[in-house]
Order: sequence, then C-alpha cells, then structure tokens
Amino acid sequence: LLSLTAEASHCSIHGVPLVRNIGELPQDNYGRPGLSHITIAGSVLHGMKEVEVWLQTFAPGARTPIHRHSCEEIFVVLKGSGTLYLASKSHGKYPGEPQEFPIFTNSTFHIPVNDAHQVWNTNQNEDLQVLVVISRPPVKVFIYEDWLMPHVATKLKFPYYWDEQCFQTLPKDEL
Amino acid sequence: LLSLTAEASHCSIHGVPLVRNIGELPQDNYGRPGLSHITIAGSVLHGMKEVEVWLQTFAPGARTPIHRHSCEEIFVVLKGSGTLYLASKSHGKYPGEPQEFPIFTNSTFHIPVNDAHQVWNTNQNEDLQVLVVISRPPVKVFIYEDWLMPHVATKLKFPYYWDEQCFQTLPKDEL
Ligand SMILES: [Zn+2]
Ligand SMILES: [Zn+2]
Repeated sequence: LLSLTAEASHCSIHGVPLVRNIGELPQDNYGRPGLSHITIAGSVLHGMKEVEVWLQTFAPGARTPIHRHSCEEIFVVLKGSGTLYLASKSHGKYPGEPQEFPIFTNSTFHIPVNDAHQVWNTNQNEDLQVLVVISRPPVKVFIYEDWLMPHVATKLKFPYYWDEQCFQTLPKDEL
Repeated sequence: LLSLTAEASHCSIHGVPLVRNIGELPQDNYGRPGLSHITIAGSVLHGMKEVEVWLQTFAPGARTPIHRHSCEEIFVVLKGSGTLYLASKSHGKYPGEPQEFPIFTNSTFHIPVNDAHQVWNTNQNEDLQVLVVISRPPVKVFIYEDWLMPHVATKLKFPYYWDEQCFQTLPKDEL
C-alpha cells in the first residue's frame, strides 16, 4: 500500500505546480542504455490531451529503436549532432534501407506519419539532446527489430516505457 | 504575378528540406513590437495537421496580447525570464485580475484550455526566448483589450499574424 501510494503521488496529475523547473523534473533511462528521458508535459503525468513534450539526451552511440507511429512528431536539436534514419512505409512490405540525414545543434525535423525511423547519436564525442513533440498522446509505438522486418510483424509497445508505471497506477488511484 | 509567385514559393509546403537549420529560417515581428517569431514546424508552412512549434523572442517589455484559445499550448523557456499572467475563464463573464507566475530559464508551463493569458518579458535586462507548442493548428486566437473585457466581446483573430500571408495565397496557388 505504501509503495502504491508513493507511485500514485509520483504519477499524480494533481498538485503539479503550473510553472515547473525542468532541471528538477524526474529523469530516467527506463531501461534504454544511454538515454535520459524527461517528460516536460505529458498526458499521463500532466493531463495533456492533444500534445506532449519530452526532453531526451542520448549518450554517444545511444539511439531510439527503429519504430513508427501514426501521430505527428517534431524534433528540435538543442545540443550535439547525430543521424536520422528514415524509411518510407509506403514503399513495400518492410521499411528497407533507410535514408540518412545528418542532424545538428539548432536543427529541426518532423517525421512523416507512419514512416519507420530511428534517431542515433553517431557523434562519439558529445551527448545529443533533443526536444520531442508528439500529437495524440500517450504515444503508441510499433517497433522493428531491423529495417527488413515486415510492417505487419511489428508489435505495438503500449503504454511506452515512461508511461508504463503511471498508466497502470492511475486507474487504481481513482478507485 | 511575379509577386504572387514569390509569395507562393515563400509559403510553399513543397520543396522544404526535411532537416532545417533553425538559424536560417525566416523570422519576423509581424507588426508586434519587440517580437521575433519563427515557425519551426507549422501547418501552413510545413503541412503539420496536429501540432505546431514556434520559437519566439521577446525584447524587454514585449508581450503577447491578452488572449485565449481552445487548443493546448506548452511553453519551454530557453532564455531569460518574465511573467505569465493567467485568469481562469470559468470564474465570470470576463477574465478579471490575473494570477502572476514568474517564469525563468529552463522552466516549462502549459496553459489550461480557454483560460485567458499573457506572457510578458518583465525583465528589463534580457530577451525572453520561448519554444511554443500548440495543438490543432493553425492557431485560432480570441483577443482581449484588457482583463475586464467580457469573453463574449472578444474577437477571433484568424488566420493569426504569421499565417496570414500564406493562408491566403495557398488556395490561390492551388487554383
Ligand atoms: Zn518517433
Ligand atoms: Zn496562448
């Protein structure tokens, strides 16, 4: 019960101050090596219904899984550099060889809806820090093991890592 | 015709590179003194349908109008400090005296849907720079002349300043 209460208070959308110091928000790697994820404004944590904003830092070599989603996603690169890998979903039964796009400090890009993509810190000397904006939260992600995995073989990962704990405890909290 | 072509190409959602250098994107004050507005990803400029991201810089003393909108809005303060004025729409026929919230570098806040609000660079020594995220673009804003103006007396400003030129020329472009 104590543990449930602690979780519920960590996850509560009530009692959150309106103006929040990003440096004091909880960050975690959620089991993904080299990642630091902070939910700046989220559906599960803050009651957002239409947009969500994350601050993510990737250590050298760290990357997202290859994945797709039907929401819109916008990146703003705050620090560092890396590579965006992007394959159009519409070309076949699997993503295939992705296009590579260099990304760099003070650059921005958005992911075409349902296109398979991966963001990778390919700079061995520096962290890559990005602000990520998504629509229709919480995010529903289909994950590919590699670029040749058929679209239909991918599995939905929902709720996603950073929403898992709170997505499950919130309903209990309201009982 | 030449002028229309120039506008159309400035406003076109076609031929925009996927990864864009924010430092090279067009910025303008759109007739609002002390403002620099850059559309990082927008519905009119880039075809976004669910979210939009702006980079705005307010010189000392510069501020948004008092306004409300039914979309969600998230701010991330990148530089400087200032004041958020916020009045709940539900309290009466007009916003009334707003609450004041100090905002500061590396802080974040979101605006409750339909609450009247104003962001003001009240720091006389420094620019205030914010990333702004909105849902359901393009933004539809109701503007108050002061905090005692009745909600029903406000006027819809649509399209908003930074979308005006392109919102009007896009349909012509498609004729
Ligand atoms: Zn993604
Ligand atoms: Zn606003």
